[in-house]
Amino acid sequence: MKSCGVVVEYNPFHNGHLYHLEESKKHAEADCMIAIMSGNFLQRGEPAIIDKWHRTKAALRGGADLVLELPFLYAVQHSDYFSQGAIQTLAEVGVDSVCFGSENGRIAAFTEAFEHMNKHQEEYDVTVRRYLNEGYAYPEASRLGYESIAFPSGSIDLTQPNNILGYSYVKQLLTYAPDVEPLTVLRKNNHYHDEEIQGKIASATSIRKELFKERDMTEKAESSLPPSTVDVLHQYKNNLGRWHNWEAYFHLLQYKIMTMEESTLRCFHGVDEGLEYRLKRTVKEAATFHQFISSLKTKRYTWTRLQRTLAHILVGTDKQEARVLLRETPPPYARILGMSDTGKKYLRKVKKETSIPLITQPQQLDHEMLDLESRAAAAYYSVLTPERRVEQLNREYGPPVIHA
Amino acid sequence: MKSCGVVVEYNPFHNGHLYHLEESKKHAEADCMIAIMSGNFLQRGEPAIIDKWHRTKAALRGGADLVLELPFLYAVQHSDYFSQGAIQTLAEVGVDSVCFGSENGRIAAFTEAFEHMNKHQEEYDVTVRRYLNEGYAYPEASRLGYESIAFPSGSIDLTQPNNILGYSYVKQLLTYAPDVEPLTVLRKNNHYHDEEIQGKIASATSIRKELFKERDMTEKAESSLPPSTVDVLHQYKNNLGRWHNWEAYFHLLQYKIMTMEESTLRCFHGVDEGLEYRLKRTVKEAATFHQFISSLKTKRYTWTRLQRTLAHILVGTDKQEARVLLRETPPPYARILGMSDTGKKYLRKVKKETSIPLITQPQQLDHEMLDLESRAAAAYYSVLTPERRVEQLNREYGPPVIHA
Repeated sequence: MKSCGVVVEYNPFHNGHLYHLEESKKHAEADCMIAIMSGNFLQRGEPAIIDKWHRTKAALRGGADLVLELPFLYAVQHSDYFSQGAIQTLAEVGVDSVCFGSENGRIAAFTEAFEHMNKHQEEYDVTVRRYLNEGYAYPEASRLGYESIAFPSGSIDLTQPNNILGYSYVKQLLTYAPDVEPLTVLRKNNHYHDEEIQGKIASATSIRKELFKERDMTEKAESSLPPSTVDVLHQYKNNLGRWHNWEAYFHLLQYKIMTMEESTLRCFHGVDEGLEYRLKRTVKEAATFHQFISSLKTKRYTWTRLQRTLAHILVGTDKQEARVLLRETPPPYARILGMSDTGKKYLRKVKKETSIPLITQPQQLDHEMLDLESRAAAAYYSVLTPERRVEQLNREYGPPVIHA
Repeated sequence: MKSCGVVVEYNPFHNGHLYHLEESKKHAEADCMIAIMSGNFLQRGEPAIIDKWHRTKAALRGGADLVLELPFLYAVQHSDYFSQGAIQTLAEVGVDSVCFGSENGRIAAFTEAFEHMNKHQEEYDVTVRRYLNEGYAYPEASRLGYESIAFPSGSIDLTQPNNILGYSYVKQLLTYAPDVEPLTVLRKNNHYHDEEIQGKIASATSIRKELFKERDMTEKAESSLPPSTVDVLHQYKNNLGRWHNWEAYFHLLQYKIMTMEESTLRCFHGVDEGLEYRLKRTVKEAATFHQFISSLKTKRYTWTRLQRTLAHILVGTDKQEARVLLRETPPPYARILGMSDTGKKYLRKVKKETSIPLITQPQQLDHEMLDLESRAAAAYYSVLTPERRVEQLNREYGPPVIHA
């Protein structure tokens, strides 16, 4: 059985994701599509609009055969750790290829960039360090680093978010899993950060914006979503009472920061360079999450970096704990969120071959990374009513989603 | 100018408090009545129904001339630390006497009990320790200790809450401030824990119960409150949107406990003997504060002890910090919450004589105990709307209440 891995967030699963999944399957000539998906919190440091179980349902109905959870600690990270967690896990479950979407569509552009970087790594590092020391944020310092080592023409633009991720996947594959083939398919229409829905393929950002603005499903949003996603979004809101965004969590975050000493705040992953003082000073005056992060933002602290740090404070990721856990290579386990019949067959085969435990429920393994995962679940569901919250926290210990 | 101190919580200020204040003034032949009052959290580990500023207003209108704040760290404590903070502060601001209410009404009963205890301290300590080791809660072990040293007839019953407090005041006065005269006046009618309002003098517990049950002021409640208290209760609810009780804070407490590791929970003041595991286990399943504390309760952990510990978790009192701060004798400062004209005159005189700083605003002093105080304020006001919360947190840095 030929298998292909994809790295996804599906927040929510839309027509563009459907297209990518179908094209990847064709391109990889795969029988089994394996998605590794962020759980309840996402790479840019945001809570997912609906939880991982409902997003898994939509993914299975959209054609995924196996959905694995990217642990919280890898998911809410910059591209390096994010790709490390995702690609190494996919490699551990034995995928034959990994296929990602890109504006370029030509995998050679990525492998060439990797070789060029390998040759000029030192020069790049020196430049980046210099700009970081001057107080530039990492993305900007990195951009200047790339400029300094003059990529050959035809290479990808490493300052674009999708290219950065694609490049990280390729880098992980070529260094850690040389047997797994890197593949890319051309992305269609929308841009990552588009804020307005345009046509059948829209960005997830624009879809979420529409849903929160109207506080309901609209025709416009529906036009860019497969019916299964429309279903789960309705289901979630009807059963659990809401969709999630940062604003819903602000009162908890604010309370937590206000009742902590600076020295305790400093223990959270991402609270560096005196950010604890800035957090305490600004949080008192804010009435919304948007206000808070706007007043926190500086040249050094980008919006995304701050969001990630705030997600780690919300969940309670200890700095020391994160450091120890991220040292483990590969990730200590793979958790299965859902599977189709094909996925089930694939799993039976791969279970004998993989070197890491494949678990379907957290109670099958005693590991600190799972303690952190249960804190992430607790934080995520904290904004539900007590009854729904207790239900969802128990669901966390239940079996995966099965889709025939 | 002759002055008399009283130790109070005024949650809220009712006819019984008014009676005590007037009787104390007569009994002490005082010109100036000085109340030391718990701030936004109370001795039994509960948030006050309305904040300290509004309770100060009612106290001034009821006849207090100076209202001092008992710092959070002393207020939310068993009777030993509570009295230590209160009595030592009163002594530092130069009161001539301290007058408390008691069922007995005869101060000799307290001083005799103190002398008897002094003589039999060792025997008492041995007994208490034995019962604690057997898993008894402190109040019960203490009761058995008193039994073992057979008080002379006519002594007070040291198992009654008001007598325990009164005894602690006398003990503090006789050992720490022998120049200050201990006085007591007979309490009228109600018992400390009465749950139903009966007549013009009712317990604060019964009044709060009535107010929360009816979610509004009622005739019955009004009959046991001075008009000024009825006023401030109305004012508070109209301006700040609510009255406070533990249930309003449960979602914050629950979120905080759920997103903390056991090892972090253990750092809070009062989380001893493995309570951290019990907290984590039970909090997930609770839908209300009442459910939570009911399932936490054991022979060893009394309701009050648990409430205090939960208040310290809510506010974020670090165990180590508390240990260091409580070592300071006398308390490091006295903060004035409000004063009448008489109080102002008294203050002018005493300012030259006292050995501790008298402050009217926290920014006048740089002290860790004030950092903790600002966390307590942040926690207390966290359940208001963002606009009201910001206002109240700024008010915290404003001048005292002045009542002509």
